[in-house]
This record gives sequence, C-alpha cells and structure tokens, in this order.
Amino acid sequence: MKPDEYDVIRIILETVGQPASPYSKIGDDVAVLPRGEGDLVAKTDMLVRKTDVPKGMETWQMARKSIVACVSDFAAKGVQPQAVLLSLALPSTITLKEVKEMARGFKEARDEFGFNIVGGDTNEADDVVIDCCMLGFAKRITERRGAAPGDRVVVTGPFGYQSVGLKVLQEGFKVPEELWSLAVSSVLLPTPRLQLGIELTAEELLSSSIDSSDGLALSLHQLADASEVGFEISRLPVDQGLSDAAEKIGLDLDAAVLYGGEEYEIVATIPENKLRWAKQTAEKLGQRLIEIGKVTSENGQVVFTDDSRSFEIERKGWIHLS
Amino acid sequence: MKPDEYDVIRIILETVGQPASPYSKIGDDVAVLPRGEGDLVAKTDMLVRKTDVPKGMETWQMARKSIVACVSDFAAKGVQPQAVLLSLALPSTITLKEVKEMARGFKEARDEFGFNIVGGDTNEADDVVIDCCMLGFAKRITERRGAAPGDRVVVTGPFGYQSVGLKVLQEGFKVPEELWSLAVSSVLLPTPRLQLGIELTAEELLSSSIDSSDGLALSLHQLADASEVGFEISRLPVDQGLSDAAEKIGLDLDAAVLYGGEEYEIVATIPENKLRWAKQTAEKLGQRLIEIGKVTSENGQVVFTDDSRSFEIERKGWIHLS
Repeated sequence: MKPDEYDVIRIILETVGQPASPYSKIGDDVAVLPRGEGDLVAKTDMLVRKTDVPKGMETWQMARKSIVACVSDFAAKGVQPQAVLLSLALPSTITLKEVKEMARGFKEARDEFGFNIVGGDTNEADDVVIDCCMLGFAKRITERRGAAPGDRVVVTGPFGYQSVGLKVLQEGFKVPEELWSLAVSSVLLPTPRLQLGIELTAEELLSSSIDSSDGLALSLHQLADASEVGFEISRLPVDQGLSDAAEKIGLDLDAAVLYGGEEYEIVATIPENKLRWAKQTAEKLGQRLIEIGKVTSENGQVVFTDDSRSFEIERKGWIHLS
Repeated sequence: MKPDEYDVIRIILETVGQPASPYSKIGDDVAVLPRGEGDLVAKTDMLVRKTDVPKGMETWQMARKSIVACVSDFAAKGVQPQAVLLSLALPSTITLKEVKEMARGFKEARDEFGFNIVGGDTNEADDVVIDCCMLGFAKRITERRGAAPGDRVVVTGPFGYQSVGLKVLQEGFKVPEELWSLAVSSVLLPTPRLQLGIELTAEELLSSSIDSSDGLALSLHQLADASEVGFEISRLPVDQGLSDAAEKIGLDLDAAVLYGGEEYEIVATIPENKLRWAKQTAEKLGQRLIEIGKVTSENGQVVFTDDSRSFEIERKGWIHLS
C-alpha cells in the first residue's frame, strides 16, 4: 500500500497519540494551545535529507534529528518545549514502512523531551524535508547577549566526535572500536542537554548562551558578537580518548573540535562567582560543564592561547549555501 | 554575487524590517513574543516549488503565496496572525536577485495581513521549499465543529477561477480577455478574507467554518464530518461570467468549482437567525457571503440538489501523495 497525505497524518497521530492538553484541537485548521506562563518562545528548523542526513542514519533517527535541532536551541535558552508543529515534504515513492518509522522517530523525540505534537502539514517533493516549529513559554530566557569580561566560557560536553562520526559514516574512515561507537552515536542520536539548560537558566547562572550546532568556532564568534566582548580560549573541549587517537587515525583535532558542527551542546558564559554552583547543578544531573576559557574586553577577538601555542579561532563553520 | 545563508537572512531582515515588538529578539536562537490575550493559535504550511508553484508565478508571488496558505486558515478561524517564522530551503544556484524578490514577497504579505516575521531557518535543497509557521492569540476561534441542522452553508467568494487560471498558466488554455485576468490573478495573487473571518468570528456569527484551499467538495465533507451533519447544496458559488463562458471554452464547470482547490475562501455555516447580520457584516467590508445550501441531519451526506438535477458531491480534492 502506498500512503497518501491522509495516511501519513493518521499514522503519525496513531503513533504519537493525541496531545495531552484538552485545548489542542488536533484536526482543525489550526492548533490551539492554552496560553502558558511568560512570553511565547518559538523556533523553527528545517531538515533536508540530501544535506542533513548522513549515510547510515535510519529513517526514525532522521525524524528524531529533525526535532533535536530545535530542542538544542530551547536547551541553550533554558526553555521547556511545549508543542511542536511538523511540516513534511515526502517523495511520491515513500513507503508505508518509512512513514511508520518516521512517526516512531517523532514519538521518540516527544517522549524524550516532553512536548506535544499539535499540528502539521504534508506535501510532496523529490526529497524528504521536515520542518519543525517548536513552541514554549518562559518568564525568562538566557540570551546570547549578556557576557561580561571576566566571565568563564563553558560548554556542556565534548566536541569533535561528530566530525569523526561523519567521516566514519560517509567516507568509511577507520577508527578504533571504542571510538567508533561514541563517534557514530553522536551523529545518529544527538542529544541536546535540555534539562541542564533549563536548570542553569532557572537558577540564573548563565550570563549568555548559544546552541552550538553550527560548530564551536562559529558559536563562540556569534556569542562574543552579541555581547561585544572577546573570548580567550585556553582549553579545547575534547575527550582524552579522541585526543589520544587523533594522530594515529590522521585526524586534524583542532579542525574537528572547532569547525565540525552538529554537536548540539550549549556554549555559555558564567560569572566567576557562580561557576561552582553551575558545576554542581550539572553534576546533580549526571552532566558536566567544561571550562574552556574566559571572556575578555577585546570586542570580536576569539583566540586560543595555552602554554604551548596561540592562534586566532576563525569565524567559520557550517554555513548553508556557501 | 552568490548569496549564502547569512546573506539570505540579512536581505530578508533588511526588506521586512525588525519586528515591531521590543520583545522579539531577532538574532537570538529563538524568537520571544509577548504572551497575548487568549489561547495560542498556531499553524504551519509548507510550499514546495515543484508542486505548488505554477508556471508564470513570479518569485515574489511565490513567497507571498507561501504565507497566504496559513493566513487562509487564520481567516477561517477568525484569528489575527501576530507572528510568522519562515524556514527556507534554497538551491545552491539561487541568485541574489531571487532572494531579494522573495524577501519582497514576504514583506508584501506582512504588510497586507499585519504580522511580524520573527524568526526562521535557512537550508539548502534541490528545490525551493518555504515553510511558514504562523502564530496568534485568540480568546475564541470558530471551530470546524458546531454546525446544526437548519444552519445555512455559505462561502466568502466565487469558486472555479483558480482551476481556469491554472489551465491558462500551465497548459496555455484559451479564455476570453475579461475572464483571463480574473482567473490568472486568482492563482497568482490569492487573497484570503482575513478581515471578514475575524469580524464574523468576533460577532459570533458562524456555527462552524473551514478554509477551502483543498477544494470546495473536500472542505464541505470535512466540515460536515466534524459536526456529524450533512449538507444539501442548492447553488454552486460561481460568477455569471465564468458560468456563461464555460461551455464555449470547454470547461467542466462543476468539476472546476467543486474539485479545483486553492481558492482560499472560507466555507462556513451560519444559524438562520444570524444570516442577515452576517451578510451585513460582509457588506460593510466590501465583501460578500454567498449562500449555497443548508445543513441537514444526514451525517456525512453532501449532496447537490436544485430544480433541474441532483447528485452526490464526492469526497475528493487536492490530496498530496495520492
């Protein structure tokens, strides 16, 4: 059986279930949601299979990833997502099995991050395109702007695995067994630090923050720009295992960590007197904050300096259409 | 110059300007909007150039149309749109001129229908894909459900021009001069009855309503289903000029009016005692309500009956992937 538009909608609704809220009128022309506490927070992110889905990624993982990108922005802002609308474009060759797998991916994301899927639209195109529009309410977000000289720069996890994972999946790049699964799973099942972002914002511990999905370097530049400050980075957020393996496998570690992208970590600044508290908050959640440098008054200057070397971190990363 | 992602965003922002509200933080990871009065209303609609954009439609008209689809749903529900997020996928061959034209189309729509563009996402794909996510607040919407036997069935404008216009644009179909411009402009510049929908809902004149963009027949069936009623249609909403020309130009008028689609009119039901008031409301806005039939208790039966003929209106229209 070849699914048409209505089959697609039915399968997704059957899989993810009706939204919990009695106010969401699924099946009407629009979705209606109870007004929450605080301002409305909204974000949209589009996944295009050809450019955003690596070889080896299963259909349900693609569907989950299409939502993860928005979750990552909500995490960086410290906002719990409440509702998602999904616009799909599917090729006419799509099978019922694939639609069911996609629905399962949406459900995984919903269960993992705790929102309702309240609406959407179905279309036909040559490629699979999934646009996720995510909504929430918040009394306060952590903005990109707000970093002050002296603040510490932190990230919520290691960088670089994604670059390695992509090379493994796309080019058959060979890596040791223990690195393989960390690298590949970082690509196939990216997991934003939603709870950590929400707690750090609730406790007003961050002076500024940004989602890192376009790469660490670009995120640092954008974050510095927003506050008209600079960053002096003294440590690259990379796990020992990856660092040890880099030379053996012929990996440019700096490039992988700084310019790779798709990490979905939070890059943030924290006033020095709140750093310990923030680290404890992370630990309580089984997470970590990696301190990588400090904020300077050198507007727009993002540099790396440690005991052995010093270089400018370039403003580059994942830029579509470039 | 070939525009990259950031050029696209810059051009759109330069063209449409910053949103009016001081709370919308354009340039952060998410858009933040002041919480409005009433519940949150949300709708997403995706345009794919290959399937949704006819020959002869200019780039700015395509951009405008990508927003019109959501406006039409807001019109049917009687809700003023407040904010729009736009996700774009563009081919790598896109030119600066095309991006500027698209930005102009977004601006036209914004000025025409009165919302802010508060966020978006830019991607690369083989085709142009524009996903519009529209947001608003409302204390009350007119739902699809609510029609009662005896209510009158109305539409807000004539049907059929779009089918003719599409045939003119796509197949070079020949029509008389006076029909040509009505038909072609109905396709290139569809104009939902937003103000009329808002007034009719504010005055609580409609018992149920739906947007008609998938065609009159399908809209009638969906509207009847939602209230578990039937419709007896006794008049097709078609202008005399189109009706007169139909035979001469070899047009199946019934098919054009019932199964064409893309009309972006409101299809609604009105309690008999409110009909006169509703018509006056429309007239005050320079609009009209065309009475086409009445609601029956025959659940799911949508039939046409007048003095000369009687037939069942089929449940068919524009269904993607079918």
